[in-house]
Amino acid sequence: MAQALDLAAAAGRAGEVPVGAVLVAGDGTVLATAANRTEIDRDPTAHAEMLVIREAARVRGDARLPDCELFVTLEPCAMCAAAIAFARLKRVTFAAYDPKGGAVEHGPRFFSQPTCHHRPEVIGGVEESAGAELLRQFFQTLR
Amino acid sequence: MAQALDLAAAAGRAGEVPVGAVLVAGDGTVLATAANRTEIDRDPTAHAEMLVIREAARVRGDARLPDCELFVTLEPCAMCAAAIAFARLKRVTFAAYDPKGGAVEHGPRFFSQPTCHHRPEVIGGVEESAGAELLRQFFQTLR
Repeated sequence: MAQALDLAAAAGRAGEVPVGAVLVAGDGTVLATAANRTEIDRDPTAHAEMLVIREAARVRGDARLPDCELFVTLEPCAMCAAAIAFARLKRVTFAAYDPKGGAVEHGPRFFSQPTCHHRPEVIGGVEESAGAELLRQFFQTLR
Repeated sequence: MAQALDLAAAAGRAGEVPVGAVLVAGDGTVLATAANRTEIDRDPTAHAEMLVIREAARVRGDARLPDCELFVTLEPCAMCAAAIAFARLKRVTFAAYDPKGGAVEHGPRFFSQPTCHHRPEVIGGVEESAGAELLRQFFQTLR
């Protein structure tokens, strides 16, 4: 999570919403790291979680990553939560909760829906204040 | 929708779940077309809708596409519905309903969630039987 927070901080300095993610294989290997790139890529789907899942699937040559754990500094949105389920990730650990856009503990609570066909283990609030503080500072600076 | 159905049929012949999508600008220009590529790309996020949104945003150089309409042969899942909202699409027209994995009229009903910050106009069931028949034939052949 420390690495994901560093990635998030760097993204914030570059004008991206500061969210970082690290995808780790079952043997502890880091398969992919990323921060949000929606601004620089002009890509509405370029959330940190999407980028690490796509990169890890590319590295592995497999759309399913059932041994893998995602560390991300913000509660995933519905797009990312569904991608996590499609990739069959084993576990998701996130820092800050996101009442406005989160889809794990808020809104659609995607993993609890009958239309969700894989439910990872979820651990929320790890380094919560560090993840939230990055976002608070970023949006305060924008104003 | 006819073009989206043709794309879906071709994808099914290539071993992909037969779903096709076309993204059309407000002036009628086709900005992007795609079918599912999750198998060939080994990418769990490579749904037809994601591919056309990403391609159109790249073509336009803008993550937001508020004049655009998406035509897709199957009700979008949660991942694609959230991407549609992030891209600020004006309208989504889909063919077949998807009770097992859809997120517009089923499951999380994403566009009705308080955590969804853009709700496009939605038209479901256009060429419904054609979209559904492609999927029925595809999964029947697999068995």
